[in-house]
Amino acid sequence: MPGRAEQFRREREELNTKILFAGSKTIQRFFALDTAAYREGVLPVKTKELMGLAASMVLRCDDCITYHVLRLAEEGATRAEIMEAMEIGLVVGGSIVIPHLRRAYRLLDELETL
Amino acid sequence: MPGRAEQFRREREELNTKILFAGSKTIQRFFALDTAAYREGVLPVKTKELMGLAASMVLRCDDCITYHVLRLAEEGATRAEIMEAMEIGLVVGGSIVIPHLRRAYRLLDELETL
Amino acid sequence: MPGRAEQFRREREELNTKILFAGSKTIQRFFALDTAAYREGVLPVKTKELMGLAASMVLRCDDCITYHVLRLAEEGATRAEIMEAMEIGLVVGGSIVIPHLRRAYRLLDELETL
Amino acid sequence: MPGRAEQFRREREELNTKILFAGSKTIQRFFALDTAAYREGVLPVKTKELMGLAASMVLRCDDCITYHVLRLAEEGATRAEIMEAMEIGLVVGGSIVIPHLRRAYRLLDELETL
Amino acid sequence: MPGRAEQFRREREELNTKILFAGSKTIQRFFALDTAAYREGVLPVKTKELMGLAASMVLRCDDCITYHVLRLAEEGATRAEIMEAMEIGLVVGGSIVIPHLRRAYRLLDELETL
Amino acid sequence: MPGRAEQFRREREELNTKILFAGSKTIQRFFALDTAAYREGVLPVKTKELMGLAASMVLRCDDCITYHVLRLAEEGATRAEIMEAMEIGLVVGGSIVIPHLRRAYRLLDELETL
Repeated sequence: MPGRAEQFRREREELNTKILFAGSKTIQRFFALDTAAYREGVLPVKTKELMGLAASMVLRCDDCITYHVLRLAEEGATRAEIMEAMEIGLVVGGSIVIPHLRRAYRLLDELETL
Repeated sequence: MPGRAEQFRREREELNTKILFAGSKTIQRFFALDTAAYREGVLPVKTKELMGLAASMVLRCDDCITYHVLRLAEEGATRAEIMEAMEIGLVVGGSIVIPHLRRAYRLLDELETL
Repeated sequence: MPGRAEQFRREREELNTKILFAGSKTIQRFFALDTAAYREGVLPVKTKELMGLAASMVLRCDDCITYHVLRLAEEGATRAEIMEAMEIGLVVGGSIVIPHLRRAYRLLDELETL
Repeated sequence: MPGRAEQFRREREELNTKILFAGSKTIQRFFALDTAAYREGVLPVKTKELMGLAASMVLRCDDCITYHVLRLAEEGATRAEIMEAMEIGLVVGGSIVIPHLRRAYRLLDELETL
Repeated sequence: MPGRAEQFRREREELNTKILFAGSKTIQRFFALDTAAYREGVLPVKTKELMGLAASMVLRCDDCITYHVLRLAEEGATRAEIMEAMEIGLVVGGSIVIPHLRRAYRLLDELETL
Repeated sequence: MPGRAEQFRREREELNTKILFAGSKTIQRFFALDTAAYREGVLPVKTKELMGLAASMVLRCDDCITYHVLRLAEEGATRAEIMEAMEIGLVVGGSIVIPHLRRAYRLLDELETL
């Protein structure tokens, strides 16, 4: 995995661990619920992650986009599938999404597996 | 189709037609692009509509939610699949999404086919 | 309680009940978590509801504003306290909040107890 | 002026008056500042109202859109000028803006002077 | 105060000063109004800052979150109180708030006084 | 042009080029439409860019603000005109816009031509 993605993943995990140990029940339960929502149901995990990616793009959250792109790569999504999710994100969210599209595209380019 | 959904569809079509005939090239091209983004690609139409629904929920747009729920019903999505898209929308978007979830759920209940 | 507020409360409860019985574990857990977040902790319930109101104003969600104003009335908040929360909401969220401020103010005016 | 626009204007003024008399200094000062920002400066009033309209569209606030369209009509803006502001709003804000575009277009159609 | 917080405070003050001297009456009045809204009223300053923090979290503004956390520390708020405001922000704003929660938590950890 | 603006422009162009060559028809058409929306129509280019700037401020997108400020400088807008667009952005979008205003102001200060 490239440097940028690896650094994101490490920082994310370190801080999530700290937060979970900080003792807020509400935050612990929210994190558990967040994880549960993306588990396989009647929809496969990949479809759920695609929805997570589209939602993250229209809400313009770079960290969330990075996270879902990495998860999609793990779930075997192809670059073409990820690009189509980004197309939906761009059309729904408008030109304000473009700076995030640029950074998302740079990430795609850095991931060797995609 | 129930009254509320039918009325939404009729008003939407009437106004869209008027807007398209108003002669703005930019708006005509945007509408065409919006339609194109949801056509089958490497991802099936249903997956794209699920992404559209999740994005509409986190952006809290009732008309957009109604539109994508109706389209999903046309594409043969089950109620359980739509509910899972709404779960993602709720967790990503937070409790501020709940009023829209209520109205979306009322629509699901009114649609006989779901 | 006035008609508008009463109707909001009834519709909200009916639909929430339906949603909770629809069988989505994720949604049930989210609703439980939402309730838990506003329970007394190191901060009193009233302070938490004031934060909920300010957050609802900047996110421009009329139903959420109505809900938190009704809850604040139940918790014994005064009209002046609610107005100060709305001031914060207006300054943080900008003039785009004004239409919601108008509807919130009409609600305050209808509530006899405030 | 048509019924819908007239009703909006009357309700808006009634509630604004009530709010201004409710005695919050912060709200009174915000309203004064809001008015001042649209006064002629190095930019003419019409340009400022066009910016207000574009901002209202991307923030998806129907009341704000209605207000700025009515103000633009007063300032002698043409329908074509208003349509171009809406084009910018649509492209910047994405398809999520379309329901507001529909309602804005219906308003344009109802205003005899445009 | 730690490096990150100190750097934020210095840059914020330098630029605010420059902006205030740039001569825009509208901006000067907005800044004055913003300050006034958080002064003690019927609600204490700490409650107002808690509302500002919750609003900043749901709007996902890192600089605003940093500012209100620093102000809350000055006002004698405890870490537990700040965490409860963040819980409200997380539940209202959803998982999209989590990256900001991570950065807010890192700041809390760096502040010796909390 | 100063370092920060020059770096923004170079990175923006490099990534836009890569994205356009990545072969997504939807993205290519969106970019073309985005460019077209700002071309001279019944409104001059400068007015359209002012609307783009105001919309970018209320949506709190630093890259978009930078882009429109640079474009406005190219179109011969004065610093006073740009400041008035920012005033509208601040009043419409609220104090949450202030961190972006600070960064926008720093950019203005770095541009020798303004």
